[in-house]
Amino acid sequence: MTEFDIIRRYFDRAPNRALLGVGDDCALVRPNAGLELALTTDMLVEGRHFSADAAPRSLGHKALAVNLSDLAAMGAAPRWALLALGLPSADGAWLEAFSAGFYALADRYGVELIGGDTTRSPLRTISIVALGEVPAGVAMYRSAAKPGDDVWISGELGGAALALRRPDIAAVAKRLHEPEPRVELGERLRGLAHAAIDISDGLTGDLGHVLERSQVAALLDYERIPRPAALRALGDRELERDCVLSGGDDYELAFTASPRRREALDALSAELGLPLTRIGTIEAGQPKLVARDADGQPIAYRASYDHFRGRP
Amino acid sequence: MTEFDIIRRYFDRAPNRALLGVGDDCALVRPNAGLELALTTDMLVEGRHFSADAAPRSLGHKALAVNLSDLAAMGAAPRWALLALGLPSADGAWLEAFSAGFYALADRYGVELIGGDTTRSPLRTISIVALGEVPAGVAMYRSAAKPGDDVWISGELGGAALALRRPDIAAVAKRLHEPEPRVELGERLRGLAHAAIDISDGLTGDLGHVLERSQVAALLDYERIPRPAALRALGDRELERDCVLSGGDDYELAFTASPRRREALDALSAELGLPLTRIGTIEAGQPKLVARDADGQPIAYRASYDHFRGRP
Repeated sequence: MTEFDIIRRYFDRAPNRALLGVGDDCALVRPNAGLELALTTDMLVEGRHFSADAAPRSLGHKALAVNLSDLAAMGAAPRWALLALGLPSADGAWLEAFSAGFYALADRYGVELIGGDTTRSPLRTISIVALGEVPAGVAMYRSAAKPGDDVWISGELGGAALALRRPDIAAVAKRLHEPEPRVELGERLRGLAHAAIDISDGLTGDLGHVLERSQVAALLDYERIPRPAALRALGDRELERDCVLSGGDDYELAFTASPRRREALDALSAELGLPLTRIGTIEAGQPKLVARDADGQPIAYRASYDHFRGRP
Repeated sequence: MTEFDIIRRYFDRAPNRALLGVGDDCALVRPNAGLELALTTDMLVEGRHFSADAAPRSLGHKALAVNLSDLAAMGAAPRWALLALGLPSADGAWLEAFSAGFYALADRYGVELIGGDTTRSPLRTISIVALGEVPAGVAMYRSAAKPGDDVWISGELGGAALALRRPDIAAVAKRLHEPEPRVELGERLRGLAHAAIDISDGLTGDLGHVLERSQVAALLDYERIPRPAALRALGDRELERDCVLSGGDDYELAFTASPRRREALDALSAELGLPLTRIGTIEAGQPKLVARDADGQPIAYRASYDHFRGRP
């Protein structure tokens, strides 16, 4: 199988919303007038982000999902993707499953794969760029959190981190291997939320970026943060705290909004069938995040994962 | 050095033509109304596309250059780039030189780095996406070659392939390690050329893609193809033929144009100080490329490089 066979067989579909897709020097799109274009990229490397025997279908899903999650955190509607793939060999079964996982998610949100690059690499390496559109002026910046805002979180936190440590717990495996990007939620938060971010490296670390950019502090009520029943059931308070406050890979959205939006956000939660939970407040002051327990005492938490520093 | 230190120190510059650059969930740009957006991506992997001891400054240049070359082949003016970088460690000296090479080329063409991803990887892996703008309707598609067109090539061919085999020949080293993307030429060919492609995998193979997409044949005069003096001087006719017809990595533009454009293209060549040479013609018929020698006899040539098939 040649590089062109791979592209033709697994990744070449006629584009709908693009002028030119896979197979020329570049892809060509005509963005809608008056819209802003949001762009994001994530690279996944074998042995680092996934194991050599990771299910290729899940990988195809996840590699796209983490990028759609970034678009959602900006309030952008996903439109197009580019895929650069480094592979040790042209493994038809792997490619078949990987592209099936990729396209199943892409089709769900109308995302078109319009270009890419396929090359040989000793380790599988997946680099995706996702592009989305957002009406001018309504994108949710990390810098937009305001003192007095509520802090909200979608879904539950800690499931993916638990799955990483306890592969035997089936109830949370999907959270790690096939995370669900909160695409509809991101689009619906336009005009409702101020700042937003997706939880890829852990709640405290990711929310920390919002505080840093917005130059505000946050006070979180630890017990209000929703977490999987399987995590509570273990009865390991330390593990639970670590997964909930510092565990990555959940790809839920954390966002801030004026208290005047509570009713609208509760209604949105019901409409989407997705829990949206107030877990704290934004306060004036230097960027600092405090998580307190049921007795109002601050909880020590571990800094988030950093690819170069590793676990602190 | 953490992931965020790396980004802050080496890759975070305030954007000019973007609404939001490095440091949020996504970059945000507002494409100019009426323009089309061209997108391209290339991944370079250590041990495959460059050696572990490759000069990082040259690498930073080349990784961006190969993407700008794709934009040029489309007639697009480069605007923005995203950079995903996999690195075994946070090596400050390497990052300093790599980013210097990247930005030296980016600044020359007003390209803004607006986003990216930095992660740990056992092998250095560089994945770049470049975005450019082109007025609606004038992009040069591979499918636009017409019978009767002249086939043109910019600059010289075979230098990079020679440098790969003979690292001792200083005169061609730069062609391989710091190729010059033909950005101005690409933009100026709008309205003059029909089809265009950049020579990354070898003239016969790359031009073959144009023939395939356009459903036409081509007849080339081998002796008319410009080549470096150092290649001729070797007196190895077989090596010369192989480098000129099948050698990759030159990043010159091959394009087709009506014979009515000869005068305009000669004038453009003089203005840009860049040789533009007619090397053959497009003919009606099944996609097939014939290169003939000075006596009119067809020359056998090697198929181009394929990452998964390797050299045939």
